Amino acid sequence: MSIIAGETIKVTRVSEGIAWEADDELASEEPLQIQMQYGSSNNRVQKNIAVTMRTPGHDGELATGFLFTEGIINSKDQVDSILQSSNSADTITIVLKENIEPGKDTSDRNFYTTSACGVCGKSSIDAIATHSIFKNEKDNSKVSASLLYELPAQLRRQQALFENTGGLHAAALLNTDGSFITLREDVGRHNALDKLIGVSLLKDQLPLTGCILLLSGRTSFELIQKAMMAGIKFIAAIGAPSSLAVELAKQNDITLIGFLKSDRFNIYSGEKRVLV
Amino acid sequence: MSIIAGETIKVTRVSEGIAWEADDELASEEPLQIQMQYGSSNNRVQKNIAVTMRTPGHDGELATGFLFTEGIINSKDQVDSILQSSNSADTITIVLKENIEPGKDTSDRNFYTTSACGVCGKSSIDAIATHSIFKNEKDNSKVSASLLYELPAQLRRQQALFENTGGLHAAALLNTDGSFITLREDVGRHNALDKLIGVSLLKDQLPLTGCILLLSGRTSFELIQKAMMAGIKFIAAIGAPSSLAVELAKQNDITLIGFLKSDRFNIYSGEKRVLV
Repeated sequence: MSIIAGETIKVTRVSEGIAWEADDELASEEPLQIQMQYGSSNNRVQKNIAVTMRTPGHDGELATGFLFTEGIINSKDQVDSILQSSNSADTITIVLKENIEPGKDTSDRNFYTTSACGVCGKSSIDAIATHSIFKNEKDNSKVSASLLYELPAQLRRQQALFENTGGLHAAALLNTDGSFITLREDVGRHNALDKLIGVSLLKDQLPLTGCILLLSGRTSFELIQKAMMAGIKFIAAIGAPSSLAVELAKQNDITLIGFLKSDRFNIYSGEKRVLV
Repeated sequence: MSIIAGETIKVTRVSEGIAWEADDELASEEPLQIQMQYGSSNNRVQKNIAVTMRTPGHDGELATGFLFTEGIINSKDQVDSILQSSNSADTITIVLKENIEPGKDTSDRNFYTTSACGVCGKSSIDAIATHSIFKNEKDNSKVSASLLYELPAQLRRQQALFENTGGLHAAALLNTDGSFITLREDVGRHNALDKLIGVSLLKDQLPLTGCILLLSGRTSFELIQKAMMAGIKFIAAIGAPSSLAVELAKQNDITLIGFLKSDRFNIYSGEKRVLV
């Protein structure tokens, strides 16, 4: 599966009072219905889990990552197969192995998500927090300020598509020596992260302790929550964090960096992992 | 109700290898439980409708706007009162007048939203589109390129808060002569727009034909959908639109401008309303 991130259309460009027709590449946004099949061999259940507005591509990773970060599955060993029909590419089905029961009762969730949606389907404010199986992982990594300064330029280089459409969020995973592991993009920042965590899960790379999660935009509560589910302890974002993102990072010993630029950044939580 | 958009916290700033402690203002993000009370006098029903991650402030407008843009209410006349307890400011209840039935069966929706969530709770891809009561409104406004060039600077001036926290999206409503009507901000762009539409609804200003909707960020499918519900026909955004946003704008005779800067912009749909 390749990313189909851009769609070229004709637009009218206006500059200094002059208008002309030109090609423009847009970030693709299409709904994806995530389904899950589970149960015993003589009682298989198929259920609509979520609809998310996503950039097509890496849909299997997205669906797997979503089920994992929502606490519905907890290992790739629970997944039997991933079905996506070429006729209806906007539906994807994660088939669980026989007798694997979803980690949460999905019936009282009935959740639906959008391109930037992470808390969908929780039935009350109290229920928003998910619980990570990697909660007690320790991460003693240290990352130097000079390495962090280089990340925005690295991300731009890796995000060739971003440069074209100007509309895609990116989530990237790096080693603490700054080498890139994986990058995923999406019109929704939560989807980009779910894709990244999904591919890591499918490659059996979890927990992602000892890695840096690099985010192209702002950091919300839900992004920290998803990162937590995957055992990530070091998050660096180009944009600002929200108040609740900072609170959650502090509570869970996560290093959170914001406003990352080529010569400066802010540390909101977990200073101990940053060498200045 | 005033906006409580920022929270001041201590952060470690790092610049050119030097670290120091400083104050930083964060965009507030807190969950809001939106409830609705409806039914006949002897059979009142109270229901949890959605949880959204929002920036506190203008919660009544947000909840009203959300119910309206989701097609659950269609007029301010249906609203009896808006309840928000000072003890639990994170719950807000829209009380419908007696015998007013919600415009949609909310029982099969059970939707939950996040700070950037607009399609939550639709039970299938087909059900994503909402239907606007202002679908057939005409808008013959014309806006000049030179006026559009001035909007980014105007938005920055109006968005004093944005400058502080760097984390708030804005949705602003302007007359076609460029004069500001209203501006609302939120950590979630959908919430900013719901607040804006909510306050317009409560002031009996719908439909918003003949106005310009100015958005600080990117334009997604859901934002166009919400704008459509309020009868908006002219949308100018600082960021890029998604492919589905452009498609929806074209289908509904909406002028959609993206990448708006002080000397240029792109027209994705509805060129006829732009004077170059």
